Amino acid sequence: MSDAKIRRPRAETPKGFRDYFGAEVTTRKAMLDKITAVYHRYGFDPLETSAVETVESLGKFLPDVDRPNEGVFAWKEDDTDWLALRYDLTAPLARVAAQFRNDLPSPYRRYAMGPVWRNEKPGPGRFRQFYQCDADTVGAPSVAADAEICAMLADALEAAGIDRGDYVVKVNNRKVLNGVMEVAGLSGDDKEAERGIVLRAIDKIDRLGPEGVRALLGEGRRDESGDFTKGAGLNAEQANVVMGFTTAKRETGADTVARLRELVGSSSIGLEGVDELEQIAALLAAQGYGPDRIVIDPGVVRGLGYYTGPVYEAELTFEILDEKGRKRQFGSVAGGGRYDDLVKRFTGQSVPATGVSIGVDRLLAALHAKGRLTTDTTGPVIVTVMDRDRMADYMGMVGELRAAGIRAECYLGNPKNFGNQLKYADKRHSPIAIIQGGNEAAAGTVILKDLVLGAQIAQNATLEEWKDRPAQVEVPRADLVAAVRRMLDPN
Amino acid sequence: MSDAKIRRPRAETPKGFRDYFGAEVTTRKAMLDKITAVYHRYGFDPLETSAVETVESLGKFLPDVDRPNEGVFAWKEDDTDWLALRYDLTAPLARVAAQFRNDLPSPYRRYAMGPVWRNEKPGPGRFRQFYQCDADTVGAPSVAADAEICAMLADALEAAGIDRGDYVVKVNNRKVLNGVMEVAGLSGDDKEAERGIVLRAIDKIDRLGPEGVRALLGEGRRDESGDFTKGAGLNAEQANVVMGFTTAKRETGADTVARLRELVGSSSIGLEGVDELEQIAALLAAQGYGPDRIVIDPGVVRGLGYYTGPVYEAELTFEILDEKGRKRQFGSVAGGGRYDDLVKRFTGQSVPATGVSIGVDRLLAALHAKGRLTTDTTGPVIVTVMDRDRMADYMGMVGELRAAGIRAECYLGNPKNFGNQLKYADKRHSPIAIIQGGNEAAAGTVILKDLVLGAQIAQNATLEEWKDRPAQVEVPRADLVAAVRRMLDPN
Repeated sequence: MSDAKIRRPRAETPKGFRDYFGAEVTTRKAMLDKITAVYHRYGFDPLETSAVETVESLGKFLPDVDRPNEGVFAWKEDDTDWLALRYDLTAPLARVAAQFRNDLPSPYRRYAMGPVWRNEKPGPGRFRQFYQCDADTVGAPSVAADAEICAMLADALEAAGIDRGDYVVKVNNRKVLNGVMEVAGLSGDDKEAERGIVLRAIDKIDRLGPEGVRALLGEGRRDESGDFTKGAGLNAEQANVVMGFTTAKRETGADTVARLRELVGSSSIGLEGVDELEQIAALLAAQGYGPDRIVIDPGVVRGLGYYTGPVYEAELTFEILDEKGRKRQFGSVAGGGRYDDLVKRFTGQSVPATGVSIGVDRLLAALHAKGRLTTDTTGPVIVTVMDRDRMADYMGMVGELRAAGIRAECYLGNPKNFGNQLKYADKRHSPIAIIQGGNEAAAGTVILKDLVLGAQIAQNATLEEWKDRPAQVEVPRADLVAAVRRMLDPN
Repeated sequence: MSDAKIRRPRAETPKGFRDYFGAEVTTRKAMLDKITAVYHRYGFDPLETSAVETVESLGKFLPDVDRPNEGVFAWKEDDTDWLALRYDLTAPLARVAAQFRNDLPSPYRRYAMGPVWRNEKPGPGRFRQFYQCDADTVGAPSVAADAEICAMLADALEAAGIDRGDYVVKVNNRKVLNGVMEVAGLSGDDKEAERGIVLRAIDKIDRLGPEGVRALLGEGRRDESGDFTKGAGLNAEQANVVMGFTTAKRETGADTVARLRELVGSSSIGLEGVDELEQIAALLAAQGYGPDRIVIDPGVVRGLGYYTGPVYEAELTFEILDEKGRKRQFGSVAGGGRYDDLVKRFTGQSVPATGVSIGVDRLLAALHAKGRLTTDTTGPVIVTVMDRDRMADYMGMVGELRAAGIRAECYLGNPKNFGNQLKYADKRHSPIAIIQGGNEAAAGTVILKDLVLGAQIAQNATLEEWKDRPAQVEVPRADLVAAVRRMLDPN
């Protein structure tokens, strides 16, 4: 092929994917390290599953579609099996819990963090690869396991930098909702579609408001764009029962529980749910987690169909400005609940499990909004190159600085234009430039240029406050490391 | 569908993939954290690219095959574009360097670590997803950049736990080899195939020995299985020149350089390569990296075709026993070199780059062989459940221990069989079991069972050495945390 025929590839990430640079990587890592430390203290062990799973193994949790490569990134292996990238960390856990059921401790507490992939239409701020950070307990039937996850979630948020008072973990129970549905005449296998619509409607109450939810419980709802969503077809009386559930929250947990007990009437599943909520509240109180951190809130239902008992969600309660400059609550950063049937798909045996997933990017955005991302973005000390024949001398300086634990590098671009070297130092947020030209070399000295101070002086027209601190010093070559240390930390 | 018709999915990782549990995750992370700290000190910034790239962008580096999903895991997006999982961290860097060339500092020093995927036939110990840990400098034409990578590699290995003396970084230069080929009459575009065979033959000298390499330089070689590999077709004189190169290493770097200078004769590319080797050695000496850590070794050529200048490889020099119990050198754990043409594919402009890739699993295996993996595998303190109606009390104890920074958990399985609780504690490597039955609760005490001591006593028939240390103590409930601390650290 002739050169002219070679088309150059585009240097682009695929649509919906992105790269993370510098502080984006280190701030996320620092946050996950803090969360990991909490998970560890709670007795959870790390698990890192492969990114690739068989579609068969992920299968049931996929959106309801015909082709296996809808919703997930999938490909055919050897013209027979389909493989796919994991789309969450829960489905792989269910597979691991089944595959290694004879070797793992039971209960099995594990945490996992890493990227997951969704084959969805990309949009602004919507990416097809993103991080999750999960903790789950498999094989623990007691609601003590759910209470523990809620407490751990509160601790993890505080460890990450969300102050007490700036978040609340809301707890509810699917069984209570099922009891309410029973009272509303929505039990029975033939009502599954209606129950699904009710569940999703309640899950949207923050966004749609009570009127929007009520419309979805009845005939349906037309949104601003004109699209019509079919409702559950409940009559007014049935809708009243369900709406009563969404507004059941009272001043105290005990009052909320009492109200829920009224609502579920004689439904045994409903009463079981209310009892479990009471137990969770008692267990949390015994560990000192009061309603300032964890509250019973019937408004939380979680959209996913597979939850079978307690569900929980962490909401950040402080306000931020949205893209239009309006104040709004930050909202949810984590959620989870009890799912007792995921492992059963593989083994036929029901395995009780409960767990939480933290939205890593959401939590990072929250910490950013609160000014709690304190990553050190200071760049390296730059040893400039005045004379390219003396590279060994400059590399020797860098070696000394590094051996002393100081982040440092030698300028390795074309050294001809000294201005470019200082521009590079600026782009790297370098605190100090080291300069040694022929005169300094002959005199056995080096010049240290304080770039932080230089930038401050440049911003400040009067030099008054800086005049007793020189922006540039010349020191004996032998004092290089000590002089750099003094300039990095003048106090 | 009736229940009987539902086939259960197999709970299995896809062939060639695996999961990492507990200490496997934490030891790798601890090692990478240490290496990262070195990279940081050298002024390198982290970069995390997306796992998914367009096949077009990866394209040129794929093995020579017709279908894009050979060698990589690839799938079709929207029936037009092919996407694929990255198979190394260098190809994505080349894409990033081209895509963000106007924003990134130049030179751009970056490190990256994470999984890569290879669609290869899985075999024993051969996985299709594995970790790499890379550092590269893009935009630095000077061999000072290569010298820096070699020094950083040495420091990274020591930081990870490989002692000085247990490794050596070998440096060579492709230009020297090209000069030798020129002398042997193998220059020119029509000799590219022969040069490739020579390159791969030299790369195998450790495995095949000089005779095997000589056979591959000539007519070819039949291996033990009877398979014939075609040779480069060199005559004896040509082969002598090439073989002279493989044995050019001398006692000192200066002597090796002198011998190489003889071998490349008047080849200008060869002389350039020898000069570069001399410069690298001088730069490293100026930073204190002598031949005990970094040596010039013409035996290192690196198999990859895209290297254009210095190449380097880190070898571990201690012996381990192979699967047949024979002693052998541990061998290579990292390698890299200068590749000046990878970014050019995208932009048309040549961008000088050099970098190294550490084989994370190989290095972990080496640290394991040297007994340098010191991960704490101690499990949590287990609060057992004697009376399930008092879960709140037990959770309260766990809460106190955790608040004091002690890893602890409550047994959350079915508490009926107390033996199962102790078996669980054993499986978790739990140091202490806390027990509070009705009597203790009434007396306001708890029992601490020292499981570490218990295991030691069980191994030791005579109790002499343990008799002054009780394996079980009863303490006031209020002293729980202090007593656990004492038992965890008796000194």
